[in-house]
Amino acid sequence: MTVTIIGLGLIGGSLALSLRETGFATVLIGVELNPDYAQRALELHLIDKILPLTEGVAQADIIIVATPVNVIVDLLPKILQLVDNQIVMEVGSTKKRIVEAVQNHVKRSHFIATHPMAGTEFSGPDAAIPQLFEGKACVLCDIQHSSPEAHQMARRLFETLKMHIVYLDSDSHDVHTAYVSHISHISSFALALTVLKKEDDENKIFELASGGFQSTVRLAKSNPATWIPIFEQNRDNVLDVLDEHIAVLSAFRSHLIKRNFKEFYNMIEKANDIK
Amino acid sequence: MTVTIIGLGLIGGSLALSLRETGFATVLIGVELNPDYAQRALELHLIDKILPLTEGVAQADIIIVATPVNVIVDLLPKILQLVDNQIVMEVGSTKKRIVEAVQNHVKRSHFIATHPMAGTEFSGPDAAIPQLFEGKACVLCDIQHSSPEAHQMARRLFETLKMHIVYLDSDSHDVHTAYVSHISHISSFALALTVLKKEDDENKIFELASGGFQSTVRLAKSNPATWIPIFEQNRDNVLDVLDEHIAVLSAFRSHLIKRNFKEFYNMIEKANDIK
Repeated sequence: MTVTIIGLGLIGGSLALSLRETGFATVLIGVELNPDYAQRALELHLIDKILPLTEGVAQADIIIVATPVNVIVDLLPKILQLVDNQIVMEVGSTKKRIVEAVQNHVKRSHFIATHPMAGTEFSGPDAAIPQLFEGKACVLCDIQHSSPEAHQMARRLFETLKMHIVYLDSDSHDVHTAYVSHISHISSFALALTVLKKEDDENKIFELASGGFQSTVRLAKSNPATWIPIFEQNRDNVLDVLDEHIAVLSAFRSHLIKRNFKEFYNMIEKANDIK
Repeated sequence: MTVTIIGLGLIGGSLALSLRETGFATVLIGVELNPDYAQRALELHLIDKILPLTEGVAQADIIIVATPVNVIVDLLPKILQLVDNQIVMEVGSTKKRIVEAVQNHVKRSHFIATHPMAGTEFSGPDAAIPQLFEGKACVLCDIQHSSPEAHQMARRLFETLKMHIVYLDSDSHDVHTAYVSHISHISSFALALTVLKKEDDENKIFELASGGFQSTVRLAKSNPATWIPIFEQNRDNVLDVLDEHIAVLSAFRSHLIKRNFKEFYNMIEKANDIK
């Protein structure tokens, strides 16, 4: 099977590694506009060759779009325009805007919206790692608009990577990911800025920082070119969750001001319920 | 060397394991008021025997107090009252209130305030693990009030555990730890509550949750009996950092509301500076 991956960053590169390793892909074609990324992807043998979009689509059995979500919205209608019998997937972190971008497209059924829920704080082809997806969830969205062939191909592909499949409509996907992913990134970015702003002597922080701090600020290294388009497309849901998060922090603040440690204790006990 | 550890939770238990493994302690005595903890500590061979406080202090060369910080403040003057030539250390996460509690004590110089900056989200003797401290920082505070013997003993003990020593006065310690530890816990508790409150269908969260979410909410499982006294004793510093953190989140919120994604991008780029 020839797989063309558009966008050879952390997710596209890791997909390339895993699809080759599992034998799912026999030929891997990359489409990548950033010349440094394209060259590194070749050097790292993530893909067999780099082609322009039109040729990459023409030679593929499956096309996977793994660019930032703003680029997915732009590219997807153009790619569908180019396909003949190929199946097209995208693996972005938002879904509503993406499916809206092709909802009336004549080739809509060739397309399936997917979200393998895996990642790290690093980006680019050098961040690609094998087994990134193993044991994680992969969401398939609005599959009633995809052909049975596209649906089965996506299932087979992600099950080959040892992911478990979850079905959601695109609206619900965007609400859930605001809770389990987007707010975690916002919180981590904010925590990093809080500490960087207040502490002049950065070395002192890092000398003292232990596992707890590292774990909460890890995501703060994530790429703004990936994350700003996600926040932009999922703005309303992210705002709802952020408002709620600020409300909880404000309740903590109020308990501290009033020295109401009994109620603060009760809240932490509830937080302990997280698994 | 006979070491008596008062409080056999995560930190006290892990110290016991490491001090035995390195040969630093030849006899390990535990003092533990919780009968379940005392029994588990014996079953796990963390310590050789459990003794009441007075006997535990009398038989020791070094006494390490590893209880919650509110109990340290209560116990420390009583322990110093009992010592003859022994050295007393405590390993709490706050320092100002603790050193104040013994500042005029006639045996003050027998005591050294320490903070090995290591931990996990788990608690109790079953949470004790070897190598918890390896490679981490250990803060020694206000050492001008400790005897050279107490200072050297503390250095030797923590260097045996492969920790690197950092010197701070107790006020600075409490400011720095508010940034690198206490706010991370507050953020994680708040994130867990945000998600638990909004999402009815908890299973759906955990089905979708990947590494990023897990990493930011990991600390939310931390024990309120440990953390509320820390927040209580370090209230003023924690409030300062929390105010700043809420201000950063509110700036993100404002950028989202106004769709000012350019400035949001710049802020994330700054957050990327965290190492």
